[in-house]
Amino acid sequence: MKRKISGLCIAIGLAMASSAVIADELRARANAIFAAVPTEAPEIEGNILTPEKVELGKMLFFEPRLSSSHLISCNTCHNVGMGGHDYLPVSIGHGWQKGPRNAPTVFNAVFNAAQFWDGRAADLAEQAKGPVQAGVEMSSTPARVVATLNSMPEYIERFKASFPDEADPVTFDNMAVAIEAFEATLITPNARFDQYLAGTDDALTSDEKEGLALFIDKGCAACHAGVNFGGQHYFPFGLVTRPGADILPPGDRGRVEVTNTASDEYVFRAAPLRNIELTAPYFHSGAVWDLEAAVAVMGTSQLGTELNDEQVQKITAFLRTLTGDIPEVVYPVLPVSTATTPKPVDMIDY
Amino acid sequence: MKRKISGLCIAIGLAMASSAVIADELRARANAIFAAVPTEAPEIEGNILTPEKVELGKMLFFEPRLSSSHLISCNTCHNVGMGGHDYLPVSIGHGWQKGPRNAPTVFNAVFNAAQFWDGRAADLAEQAKGPVQAGVEMSSTPARVVATLNSMPEYIERFKASFPDEADPVTFDNMAVAIEAFEATLITPNARFDQYLAGTDDALTSDEKEGLALFIDKGCAACHAGVNFGGQHYFPFGLVTRPGADILPPGDRGRVEVTNTASDEYVFRAAPLRNIELTAPYFHSGAVWDLEAAVAVMGTSQLGTELNDEQVQKITAFLRTLTGDIPEVVYPVLPVSTATTPKPVDMIDY
Repeated sequence: MKRKISGLCIAIGLAMASSAVIADELRARANAIFAAVPTEAPEIEGNILTPEKVELGKMLFFEPRLSSSHLISCNTCHNVGMGGHDYLPVSIGHGWQKGPRNAPTVFNAVFNAAQFWDGRAADLAEQAKGPVQAGVEMSSTPARVVATLNSMPEYIERFKASFPDEADPVTFDNMAVAIEAFEATLITPNARFDQYLAGTDDALTSDEKEGLALFIDKGCAACHAGVNFGGQHYFPFGLVTRPGADILPPGDRGRVEVTNTASDEYVFRAAPLRNIELTAPYFHSGAVWDLEAAVAVMGTSQLGTELNDEQVQKITAFLRTLTGDIPEVVYPVLPVSTATTPKPVDMIDY
Repeated sequence: MKRKISGLCIAIGLAMASSAVIADELRARANAIFAAVPTEAPEIEGNILTPEKVELGKMLFFEPRLSSSHLISCNTCHNVGMGGHDYLPVSIGHGWQKGPRNAPTVFNAVFNAAQFWDGRAADLAEQAKGPVQAGVEMSSTPARVVATLNSMPEYIERFKASFPDEADPVTFDNMAVAIEAFEATLITPNARFDQYLAGTDDALTSDEKEGLALFIDKGCAACHAGVNFGGQHYFPFGLVTRPGADILPPGDRGRVEVTNTASDEYVFRAAPLRNIELTAPYFHSGAVWDLEAAVAVMGTSQLGTELNDEQVQKITAFLRTLTGDIPEVVYPVLPVSTATTPKPVDMIDY
């Protein structure tokens, strides 16, 4: 009896050790593919994040007078209280026009290799200049923006403090650089998955760990890797099977418009999946509201795999562990308009 | 010689004493007519401001899903970073429609006797229900709002915590009560004028004090008095001389639509003047951008007085001392939509 018990103990001990080995192995695999969101904003080449510049960037991010209507700010579509976007299939812009694609989250966007669904902006500063000028978004011009900023003495002072070496710091480019500086602070560390990566085994449930293993083994991680679980490379949407026109509208041909290369037709950036549970609806078309459904679409279109319900649920459960701490943002107090501030454009035309 | 000097000293001493008496007299007159903005939110009858309710109210104030488009929140038109309003003549709402009147500031609105330019809402809770339902503003319905809130478990929990004695706390009325609780905290104490009222003589310059004296002596204070310098009573716009149709559009007949009383034609609330330098453009029509111009219009239309440039400038300089400390607002993190959250209405129709 004594021997039997002792044998049982050994067996249990081995099983536990073996289970621990498997657990460590999964973590090691995960650490080789992914990385945690840092707790501090990353360094940006050519854009030192001074407190003055970050604060100015925050003001500009919330500044509706960067739009010609004085209604729309960056935060309108990249709402810091709503997962860094707007919970809309496509955004509503100037004159209530619809944007062409789903607004990506601003959270952790600094970790993407390039910006926009087609990667047409090299960085966040370049990105910031797009919507300000787009006719369907903020519908302004660089000249109008500079005139607006120059009309408010507080902005002039803040640009001087943010770009102390420049003789004429109030520029459209510097507006974008300051916005980039603020956006670089909008990161979401401490997700349960990141705690797991760091060694806290019980940060994930067993279902979530199985979801992680499936995410790697089924091939999701081939495109969705790194700090941001995506945002680095471009792939045809419909790598294996092209999804329906409701999800992949034929009129939006993706990255081919940027590169003029035939093989880039219907090519889009692999979406970053950090905080994915906060960023419905999904895909560049914003056509799918349900995360489970989006995972299933990815299985068939990109992997050629019909994921069963249990697999979809486990992968989705895992994806929900990518939600980090939302950055605290104190609403900035914007300077008052002056007599020389360009007036909002006549709204009667819209 | 000694006697002469001593006589001169007495004269100077008397002049100083007399100047001090005049200064104290002006302050005493001001204290009899006006009152400082308190440093703490006031008590509201029937609405105890618990931290839970104020926080819920803040979330709802920033909640664009209270609008059927999911684009427009209270903060869109009553922007806490822009003087509590939107710097627009009239607001832009659902489908890019224009509202009928200039959006009043939310700051210190709790001190108004009633809400809206025509006083049609008795309090902030009643007010909050208006724009949510107005077709040109947020274009939602009480049923849609309740369905939206009930679709997110965090809101249900927060309504329970905010209204602990109610069996079914997630109601349209309680939404409004919570918003009122938050808005009651949006007060701006410590204006230079309030420091002056409390006894700090050099909080105002001599020009500003002369402006204060003019504000009282010319009759402005007859309508613009109390904590909020207005917001208590209703007067015909054009009490003496009706302003032009650009400022008083004939199609908006004011309070008569509320009271059905002929004498209320073109009657509007005396605008509260706290933070007036932050709330251009002016009047219910939002037709006048310049504060000096608005003061001059008031002189002719309400007082029958052609104020000269110096008087206008001094009164305006005084009005600029009514700007208080802007409340610090941490952007709320809103719950994520769920499968049962009503979707944004189809935007194609607009």
